[in-house]
Amino acid sequence: MSVIKLNSGYNIGVPPESCIFSEHALAEPAKRPDIVQDKNLPRLSIVSTGGTIASRIDYRTGSVTSQSDAAAILRAIPELSKVAHYTTKSLYTILSENMNPAIWQELARAVFEEIKNGADGIIVTHGTDTMAFSAAALSFMIDTPVPIIFVGSQRSADRPSSDNVMNAVCAAKAATSNLGEIAVVMHATTNDDMCSIHRGTRVRKMHTSRRDAFQSIGVPPIGSVAYPSLEMDLTGDALTRGTRRPALHDKLDDRCALLYFYPGMSPDILKSFEGYHGLILAGTGLGHVSTTLIPPLRKLIESGTVVMMTSQCLQGKVCDRVYDTGRDLLEAGVIEGADILPEVALVKMMWVLGNEKNPEKVKDLLRTNLKGECNRRSLHGL
Amino acid sequence: MSVIKLNSGYNIGVPPESCIFSEHALAEPAKRPDIVQDKNLPRLSIVSTGGTIASRIDYRTGSVTSQSDAAAILRAIPELSKVAHYTTKSLYTILSENMNPAIWQELARAVFEEIKNGADGIIVTHGTDTMAFSAAALSFMIDTPVPIIFVGSQRSADRPSSDNVMNAVCAAKAATSNLGEIAVVMHATTNDDMCSIHRGTRVRKMHTSRRDAFQSIGVPPIGSVAYPSLEMDLTGDALTRGTRRPALHDKLDDRCALLYFYPGMSPDILKSFEGYHGLILAGTGLGHVSTTLIPPLRKLIESGTVVMMTSQCLQGKVCDRVYDTGRDLLEAGVIEGADILPEVALVKMMWVLGNEKNPEKVKDLLRTNLKGECNRRSLHGL
Repeated sequence: MSVIKLNSGYNIGVPPESCIFSEHALAEPAKRPDIVQDKNLPRLSIVSTGGTIASRIDYRTGSVTSQSDAAAILRAIPELSKVAHYTTKSLYTILSENMNPAIWQELARAVFEEIKNGADGIIVTHGTDTMAFSAAALSFMIDTPVPIIFVGSQRSADRPSSDNVMNAVCAAKAATSNLGEIAVVMHATTNDDMCSIHRGTRVRKMHTSRRDAFQSIGVPPIGSVAYPSLEMDLTGDALTRGTRRPALHDKLDDRCALLYFYPGMSPDILKSFEGYHGLILAGTGLGHVSTTLIPPLRKLIESGTVVMMTSQCLQGKVCDRVYDTGRDLLEAGVIEGADILPEVALVKMMWVLGNEKNPEKVKDLLRTNLKGECNRRSLHGL
Repeated sequence: MSVIKLNSGYNIGVPPESCIFSEHALAEPAKRPDIVQDKNLPRLSIVSTGGTIASRIDYRTGSVTSQSDAAAILRAIPELSKVAHYTTKSLYTILSENMNPAIWQELARAVFEEIKNGADGIIVTHGTDTMAFSAAALSFMIDTPVPIIFVGSQRSADRPSSDNVMNAVCAAKAATSNLGEIAVVMHATTNDDMCSIHRGTRVRKMHTSRRDAFQSIGVPPIGSVAYPSLEMDLTGDALTRGTRRPALHDKLDDRCALLYFYPGMSPDILKSFEGYHGLILAGTGLGHVSTTLIPPLRKLIESGTVVMMTSQCLQGKVCDRVYDTGRDLLEAGVIEGADILPEVALVKMMWVLGNEKNPEKVKDLLRTNLKGECNRRSLHGL
């Protein structure tokens, strides 16, 4: 079967024998000129990492690759020039499944430099696959007085249903707003009428292809941007511009893993994590794994691995004080993860272990609400 | 800190020095008499496996353990006697995090025996943690002409907010209805006014503690039972009583695993799955993992492990034909999992590998909608 990319943006499969190969089947569109910027508007910095918002069809294979840079985003979305003027920084052009902790660190440093350089806000363009991981990573690494807005698109720019223009313009609006934290701005519904502003430590991609795939989990979004009016609404939970003083804590310990439990899981699988510094469990229900896994978990903890429990339910709080297996897990030294998302817990574990060596303080930090990631006592007013 | 279980069912923590130990602090409630059954009503079989619906406080430790059997459920919920008359079979009294493929098989055989014995419907009482896994497992193992209804409770019977009575009575109603498939019946909202009927291959526990934690993913519920009127509503998608002839296919291959991808995952982790017969990946977005994992996945597939991709988004369809990494995964031999849930995919892999040895037929079965688990061409009219 050959796959043919139609002008509508959709692919169809046809038998190879029905195809005639033509070198001229797809022509690259003409480049648009650079846009004129109004320097009386707020100054935003666009830091690009790749992903669909910066993607285009590979005219060789018909697949979508991430190739464009920040300047290309500005050329492609001239509407942005009505909201702010921009400087651009192209860090990467990768699909976000290839992000990793080292790239999060480089990204944090690059974004922090833009804060120090006086940007009124930062837009990070990012693939949607792991955008939530990266937004959480930057949330822990950076204290920011200005908005840092992650934005992407679920459909590439060459598709009529692309969400890239609306998402980018709403992100720019949020980045010029009174917000003072790290957030994800993406379609709120399948109508092109509103984007939600999600806290960077509370958001998850909940659909493979819908434009409204991103949802705040366990809490409401911290705001919204109407489209095309660009009316902003921030809830009382949102941290406002200037609340935090800028600080960068960019250490991460990448010897951390996330293990998703399932019935019948062999205890041998835990051997893969010997020597790891941190392990997040995504358990069932209130935070459980089978009784057969508790002895190897105890061994892992005794050897120095910090283990925290989250729930594959995604919503609701872990509580290991109710049922027998939970109590056995606590007794073995597993830390309860409250209502933190498993993916965010992984990033938090990397950050805590990267910045704190005292085991008791590590536990205390894991149990503390640092950047709005869980519903627990907070150190920092979030 | 000592934990005290209040009469309300809630726990509070108090400093141990404020506690006085008393052997009589908690007394076991008096046993209720067995209920009188009306044999003119349909006959249901209650097969109990344990969990909160059959749980009570351990009067020694204050924690909740699974101890009661099916007969005790009938004594505890006399309202059941208005809907049907019952035979009971106590298979296990375990917390469902301790379920495993061998127990699913025993459960399938026990339930199938009840079908053969002429029960008008089966109720399986089950812990909520892994109820969705077990419902999926039985969906693949049993072709049933009568309803097989999984039910549990999120709050133990000794809590005023317990959902056990309403869930059990709605489950009994569904088990006497015109439904002809395997389903989960649980609270539809936090009001005590309706239960949803979820297809056994499409349901997931989406909250650690809420009574309406169970949700159909990717499809609407196949029906509802109003409470206390017990008015039933089945959608056109629901298979009706008698559509399928009874059959048991109880083989499972438990050398299967589920691996949840995260950025920075070490390729070494894949070594744990050498020798496994099947591996389900929960990738990001449309079904991706990092490029660094593709060579070890290719090696695994070449050595005979069947690998299928699902998405940690939970909703929406996997499609690895759009982006470069996806195409590389397909080229390495990874099978696209359509919109099947990762947990259901694991169970399906166990069932397919248990029942089919021909590698091409295995792939074909994995790509086929067998029991409503995915939105794809179907062999069986679901």
